[in-house]
Amino acid sequence: MKLNQFARLTPDLETQRQELAAIGLLGQSKTDFTRCLQIVYPKLFPEAYSPAAQQQALATVAVNEEQDLKQWLQTNPTRMTQVEFYTVALQLLGFEADTTVDLAEPIAFMEQVKLPHLDHDIETTNDFVEAIYLLLNTRTPKLVNYLDDLANRGFFKHFHKKPNFLIFNGKVQQTFNPDEVLREVVWIESDLDTDHDGKRDLLEATIFRPAVTGVGLKVPALFTANPYFHGTNDQPDLTHDAQSGLTVKTTSHTREEVTYTPDAPLDLPHQEVMGSSQRAEVYGDENGIYSLNDYFMARGFAVVYSGGVGTRGSDGFRSTGGVDETASAVAVIEWLTGQRKAFTNRTDGITIDAWWCNGSVAMTGKSYLGTLAIAAATSGVKGLKTIISEAAISSWYDYYRENGLVVAPGGFQGEDADVLAEETFSRQKQGGDYLKVKAAWQKHLAAITANQDRETGDYSAWWDERNYRNNLSHITADIVSVHGLNDWNVKPKNVIKFWEGIQDLPVAKKLFLHQGQHVYLNNILSLDFTDMMNLWLTHELLGVDNHAETLLPDVTIQDNVTPETWHTVTNFGENNPAVTTQQIPLTQLNPSADHFTDHAKAIYVANHDDPDRFEAAIIQPDSDYAESRLLLTQPTATTDLTLEGTPSIDLHLSIDQPTGILSVRLVDLGPANRFNPTPTVLERNGYQLAYDFKTDNRLEFTPSKTITAAKLISFGHINLQNQQSSYQSSVIEPGVAFDIHLELQPTHYTIPAGRQLGLIIHGADMAQTIQPDQPVTYTIDWAKSQLNLPHY
Amino acid sequence: MKLNQFARLTPDLETQRQELAAIGLLGQSKTDFTRCLQIVYPKLFPEAYSPAAQQQALATVAVNEEQDLKQWLQTNPTRMTQVEFYTVALQLLGFEADTTVDLAEPIAFMEQVKLPHLDHDIETTNDFVEAIYLLLNTRTPKLVNYLDDLANRGFFKHFHKKPNFLIFNGKVQQTFNPDEVLREVVWIESDLDTDHDGKRDLLEATIFRPAVTGVGLKVPALFTANPYFHGTNDQPDLTHDAQSGLTVKTTSHTREEVTYTPDAPLDLPHQEVMGSSQRAEVYGDENGIYSLNDYFMARGFAVVYSGGVGTRGSDGFRSTGGVDETASAVAVIEWLTGQRKAFTNRTDGITIDAWWCNGSVAMTGKSYLGTLAIAAATSGVKGLKTIISEAAISSWYDYYRENGLVVAPGGFQGEDADVLAEETFSRQKQGGDYLKVKAAWQKHLAAITANQDRETGDYSAWWDERNYRNNLSHITADIVSVHGLNDWNVKPKNVIKFWEGIQDLPVAKKLFLHQGQHVYLNNILSLDFTDMMNLWLTHELLGVDNHAETLLPDVTIQDNVTPETWHTVTNFGENNPAVTTQQIPLTQLNPSADHFTDHAKAIYVANHDDPDRFEAAIIQPDSDYAESRLLLTQPTATTDLTLEGTPSIDLHLSIDQPTGILSVRLVDLGPANRFNPTPTVLERNGYQLAYDFKTDNRLEFTPSKTITAAKLISFGHINLQNQQSSYQSSVIEPGVAFDIHLELQPTHYTIPAGRQLGLIIHGADMAQTIQPDQPVTYTIDWAKSQLNLPHY
Repeated sequence: MKLNQFARLTPDLETQRQELAAIGLLGQSKTDFTRCLQIVYPKLFPEAYSPAAQQQALATVAVNEEQDLKQWLQTNPTRMTQVEFYTVALQLLGFEADTTVDLAEPIAFMEQVKLPHLDHDIETTNDFVEAIYLLLNTRTPKLVNYLDDLANRGFFKHFHKKPNFLIFNGKVQQTFNPDEVLREVVWIESDLDTDHDGKRDLLEATIFRPAVTGVGLKVPALFTANPYFHGTNDQPDLTHDAQSGLTVKTTSHTREEVTYTPDAPLDLPHQEVMGSSQRAEVYGDENGIYSLNDYFMARGFAVVYSGGVGTRGSDGFRSTGGVDETASAVAVIEWLTGQRKAFTNRTDGITIDAWWCNGSVAMTGKSYLGTLAIAAATSGVKGLKTIISEAAISSWYDYYRENGLVVAPGGFQGEDADVLAEETFSRQKQGGDYLKVKAAWQKHLAAITANQDRETGDYSAWWDERNYRNNLSHITADIVSVHGLNDWNVKPKNVIKFWEGIQDLPVAKKLFLHQGQHVYLNNILSLDFTDMMNLWLTHELLGVDNHAETLLPDVTIQDNVTPETWHTVTNFGENNPAVTTQQIPLTQLNPSADHFTDHAKAIYVANHDDPDRFEAAIIQPDSDYAESRLLLTQPTATTDLTLEGTPSIDLHLSIDQPTGILSVRLVDLGPANRFNPTPTVLERNGYQLAYDFKTDNRLEFTPSKTITAAKLISFGHINLQNQQSSYQSSVIEPGVAFDIHLELQPTHYTIPAGRQLGLIIHGADMAQTIQPDQPVTYTIDWAKSQLNLPHY
Repeated sequence: MKLNQFARLTPDLETQRQELAAIGLLGQSKTDFTRCLQIVYPKLFPEAYSPAAQQQALATVAVNEEQDLKQWLQTNPTRMTQVEFYTVALQLLGFEADTTVDLAEPIAFMEQVKLPHLDHDIETTNDFVEAIYLLLNTRTPKLVNYLDDLANRGFFKHFHKKPNFLIFNGKVQQTFNPDEVLREVVWIESDLDTDHDGKRDLLEATIFRPAVTGVGLKVPALFTANPYFHGTNDQPDLTHDAQSGLTVKTTSHTREEVTYTPDAPLDLPHQEVMGSSQRAEVYGDENGIYSLNDYFMARGFAVVYSGGVGTRGSDGFRSTGGVDETASAVAVIEWLTGQRKAFTNRTDGITIDAWWCNGSVAMTGKSYLGTLAIAAATSGVKGLKTIISEAAISSWYDYYRENGLVVAPGGFQGEDADVLAEETFSRQKQGGDYLKVKAAWQKHLAAITANQDRETGDYSAWWDERNYRNNLSHITADIVSVHGLNDWNVKPKNVIKFWEGIQDLPVAKKLFLHQGQHVYLNNILSLDFTDMMNLWLTHELLGVDNHAETLLPDVTIQDNVTPETWHTVTNFGENNPAVTTQQIPLTQLNPSADHFTDHAKAIYVANHDDPDRFEAAIIQPDSDYAESRLLLTQPTATTDLTLEGTPSIDLHLSIDQPTGILSVRLVDLGPANRFNPTPTVLERNGYQLAYDFKTDNRLEFTPSKTITAAKLISFGHINLQNQQSSYQSSVIEPGVAFDIHLELQPTHYTIPAGRQLGLIIHGADMAQTIQPDQPVTYTIDWAKSQLNLPHY
């Protein structure tokens, strides 16, 4: 176990004393050393309500092999050795004496687990203050830090009667009773009419806010734009068949043709206002969906969810990332910050303000939810102070398309923009509402199907509308981006191109890259992500000057070889000065042949393979698909090689058909216990969010117990007609060679000494591209081809 | 989807009217039909606080292809067709018009899903009362019935201010605010001194009780004796190596020698009483662990957890099912029912009574927890009205041993009683406590290791102490037993022998057998298990005469072929009059050879197999272990064959060694999409336990998408020296034939027409028995051997 920590401040001793006084642990006046210990230790058992109960709790802690803490304190000690202090400390943190921790060697254990400690005995009251302050800010095996653990056991519950924001070590504490939260629904009047009924689309929002806002406290809001909030339509399954033929493209496009032009704003009548109220009329019966949001509820933040146009309770139609969905999210922020009206119900014209909001909003969420956070940020909307965007799409073309090809998100072969629009059009769940818009919706959906253009896979104005990277310059919110380097659903290109695009913006920005797939990061034990976000949001939304911008690392990257190891660097890839890009002629990678014929479809059908099995098989040294690919290898590495950035390949090749799909994979070869693809549940419900409140699972990225022979590092796909760009087509003369340049997915990946970098070149990708029946023969001129490998 | 329902009462119309009035849905006075609909429907949206909000909710429900419910009610209807009522009803239940349900054909859908309905149009107020009452007691796709769903959305929240028990349709409703629950810890003074310190062991108990008990309401208690409550000691792993040699037994035992004789009661001093209090001194910071318990908290029940001797917070030592653990559980019930003292802390002698308890206690829990419910029930302790015991051990010999063999629980090769004792000795987690008892514990643990006797595997007085079936005649509590027919951890023999043993007791008893493994049943969608338990406990603990004993089926068994199908019968196996036992001479099962040599260990090692892989491989038609087994088959079934009860086998055989292990498996052969071994998560957090409260996952047993060739139905193991019993040894002369009779695990399993019953005879079971290196050759005289197959 390694409990990495980045969100800890080290204030001066006087500040430490003041903060300890504020939480009621120790008065600010100087106290005799012995007395100080005898006062403080009993208070570290908040579940004990009486002196006798405290004493019996002290007796559960060993100071050494002979004495428990109750006995030891009764000896009126005048000093505490470093070993004594940390033997006790480790047990207080939740480690087990004798089983986990050698009572006589606490420091060795703390260093192994990466816990901070003083390096001297505790001989004065000041020493003790410093040691206890540090201990309260030390992480526990329960994921939270020690003060949070005490709070989870009731340490702050006397604040529940009259809660206000309490800051300790720069982070806001759980002084609010999360059971005393109002759950209410309002309808926000947008400027949209996406269902073309001549009326402004009303957008439903569900609010969870501390009851104490009712008596005047103003609080910040965490807003998650969540199209899945009221469920999805999964039947009938609209997933497309993976087509069997690749169309020969006959038209090419210009940059201008594929540039999105916004429509003129609509001139829509407003609903007549008949009055206003501070009282919502509808209870929010949908539960919160993100434990990071719930965590902040106990810390006084409001949490707001809204599905946006076309979701249950709202008007309008879905557009899978179109400008109307961005406007939906922005409308909620505008309401929260007093710039837009909402109503208590759809009909009566009674407005309701977010009078309880302090005007500071952050957006959170993963996947589509994080995507809409990026979308909203690119609007520059006032009041959106920051986004914490996880596994988010920055351009929908990079989600459903690639270099002129239809490419599915990993795990969802056949999905497309229209499928997602239908899935998230949860208005359909309410039969009385749906019957009025059914015909209009089906027409709207048919237009999405046409516009997404599965025929060519080319970039277009329709996709350009869904490319948020066009509008990065409007961003005024500070940015936290989180992404899995093995996220083959929303691929890493989405985060890295976004990150690269905001480099020069005058906003604060932080990047987290983990070795998982499409997962949240807030309950992974080895990283204090939640504490970092607490420091960040305490700064962003409560305006506390806690140095979050400088204290938090700019870029945090998880190591893929050593478990529980997170590297902090100043930047990533081409912006990381340590990285150089090596051009490797492919002749150096031992090509055994210069051509292959892609029979993948026939093998796939004959083997009854599925996408998962194909993805596993195509990268194995021994593969049923071996004849349908070329496998090139670097010599076995003698030192660790760390790839970082966006690898690319230049190929000079010909094919025997007028069109074709090319896929390229970088793989890590050699037997090893690599990380499991999904995090392991260390303890179900093992992460307590607040006192007498919800829990989440405690997770970690762990090495697999099984040895694997190969692992995908990065990949890319291209339509060989798209030699210039994703919107321009070239004519291919069978047998005539041409050049392509293909960028693979960005990565940070260490190939340790003893393993091998492999390069796989193949045709159609059964898991992600369409699946042509027609075999294509590829012939590559190795002498005119190279791999461009950023590494250090 | 099939929503089976067994816990629904059909009272007369007058009672229905009274109950509808009690929940505030409809006054008791006769009301005009139109007005009645216009009053009732808006109330079915408890999240809507204003008339306008209710009207907008009505507009979300379709009555037909043209009208929503708001529009339709505005027409002042004087009748409602059956189709109109159920089109609306299905949407209210949470099904989706147009997507899931054809608006014009609701009845066909209801019959498919097994939902009850009236078979006529709604033409009078009485018709409507009857239809709405039935609808409130109809199940929803959210697992709960419709009234529970309304309650989860706030229907009963106006009761929170002054909650009391409200019964509807025989079941207690969620009128209590589960957030207003006191969590407290007390220490119960037992009659035990298992840690031999001369003092009575104090047993910690954690209580969750409605705050309203503070103003006089007395409530029943659900008690879960949970040795895992404060965690387990998992390091270092104490699991035994699977030994490589099987000992030749040289001594045999008599029944008397293996009969447990209780020790004389200890004469221990009581702690001096210095006063008493109604106020606990310690907050219970451990969370509840069972969603069925949490469900009842919102219904006014207290929930109590206690780990028993040797667990964290308590005194004493673990004994893995010994009489002291039974006494620990009983002590808690005695305290709850006023028969025993508890203290507010360990030292001050201040007693605290369970003054808030109505004197009625039920025990719940799965596995070890359910085991202790059986154990406590066999004490006959007063106040324990019923137990709901799931996947429970009824004799620890049947958990760790079988017919003179050491046999591991499935999935835990090498585990034994001492391993579990150490794992659950969570006192060790508190260093200050542990240091005082470490030496004594290690001595105690060594005695368990010696007494469990991994050398012979024989039954002994030590195991007899742990055979609760010796004391069934003391049971006075009514019994609910739940078990998975594929539970190879706590094997089905435990529940069936228990069930058979209580047949003649004058207590009510119910048996549930599902096709899962070692899982809870309360969140499986296709069965209304929670409602049944509500009906049961409303009767048992609140004394309501709701006919639970007769309404609930005596035996409920899940079908293994048709998903979501539960059979109800009057009894099981040999007590089921439909079952006959067929003696099948093994010559009829096409034996291809009469001998085999068991090389399983060598193959296991060479293949780097693990227990899971061995269990899968040994039953495959094509198996690496084919030479180390005999596979006999019945002809392919031409009609369905349902096995029910305890199959057994008589073999006349010889071996070429002085000792040996024999394993026998019944298998279902033939390609099929059988049920997945573990239930599928239909929706994470999709089961809401109460209004603004916890959730659990919603699950179902579903057929696998993959075709398998074989599945284990039942199995058994025997030490071939234990030809008479599990405590008597016979001498085996190599080459000299002898007889054995081996009972396999009880089952209920249908082999559908087109599949085949197989019988596998093999030697050591790498997953469960020890793993001898010595190959043994088995020669079977088929003419003198038979399979005894209970079936219908």
